[in-house]
Amino acid sequence: MPHITLPEGLPGIRGPMAFRPETAKPLNELVDVLLRGPHSLSPGERELIATFVSAQNDCRYCQTIHGAIAAHHLNGDEALVVNVKRDAQQAAISDKLKALLVIAGKVAESGRLVTDADVARARQQGATDLEIHDTVLIAAVFCMCNRYVDGLATWAPDDPAFYRQRAALVAENGYAASTLQGQK
Amino acid sequence: MPHITLPEGLPGIRGPMAFRPETAKPLNELVDVLLRGPHSLSPGERELIATFVSAQNDCRYCQTIHGAIAAHHLNGDEALVVNVKRDAQQAAISDKLKALLVIAGKVAESGRLVTDADVARARQQGATDLEIHDTVLIAAVFCMCNRYVDGLATWAPDDPAFYRQRAALVAENGYAASTLQGQK
Repeated sequence: MPHITLPEGLPGIRGPMAFRPETAKPLNELVDVLLRGPHSLSPGERELIATFVSAQNDCRYCQTIHGAIAAHHLNGDEALVVNVKRDAQQAAISDKLKALLVIAGKVAESGRLVTDADVARARQQGATDLEIHDTVLIAAVFCMCNRYVDGLATWAPDDPAFYRQRAALVAENGYAASTLQGQK
Repeated sequence: MPHITLPEGLPGIRGPMAFRPETAKPLNELVDVLLRGPHSLSPGERELIATFVSAQNDCRYCQTIHGAIAAHHLNGDEALVVNVKRDAQQAAISDKLKALLVIAGKVAESGRLVTDADVARARQQGATDLEIHDTVLIAAVFCMCNRYVDGLATWAPDDPAFYRQRAALVAENGYAASTLQGQK
């Protein structure tokens, strides 16, 4: 049971977003820029960062929906998403993304844990200032989303098919547009 | 030294915001709605929630600037801000705000720690669904901001006068407007 009365039938972050559209609007704009805007990291890679952080924070709704969106962008490779959540450093992703995920994982615990050596490793693998910035901010944004979703005790569907279906809609239309259509 | 090359002379979150205006825009809109929009909690009370969470997360820049903004809204009562950070349950704030700060403190650790009893206590002190929602989201937003500021190793001024001066500008003009003027 959610801690407050939310519009029915909307799982995860969709309930609070429908409850408070004034804050949902900038939240969706932020996530659309970070995860879907023009970028040297692919949408699939950026969704993997979101999924990785949400898994570390143990947020079932966020890690499942963003894992499904990541897989959608990555040719349906759900096994890769599972591997990144389980042990990113051994997963079949680029060395640059592995280095960025180390930074993301530290940000999820505390920003003060990110070291010069962590950033140097990412640079050695070709990461740019923008990629490092956006990795930190994506990790920070999902620390927010995870706490928003779980702090209000929202519910999450069990059926993986639900997440696959939503993932396709979000991947096609974006976060703001999908929320307006009740489809995040 | 920040981990990436940021525009010079801008402390805390202002450096990364100037570096990435595409994400700064929705971030500032979000904070303006949450901390300054029409509300049954005063701007001072909402800034106290932001300050309390930022102190718990040990983010020097955020707890100092938002503490200064809180004090500005609260007739310059800097001692009250110090007391809320030190031991909110003994501070000279309403029983409702004390109950909301318990929720905020748990959200800062993990949203899953918020219990039905925490929410019931807030309701007994008169908290509405919107106040509970916004407390959770303010706490979550500052978990994001703290990690953004510290994850990039931004710098923070030492001089309290700097924060008091900025606080007056932000309190008068809002976050988005102050950032546009380079004044957050």
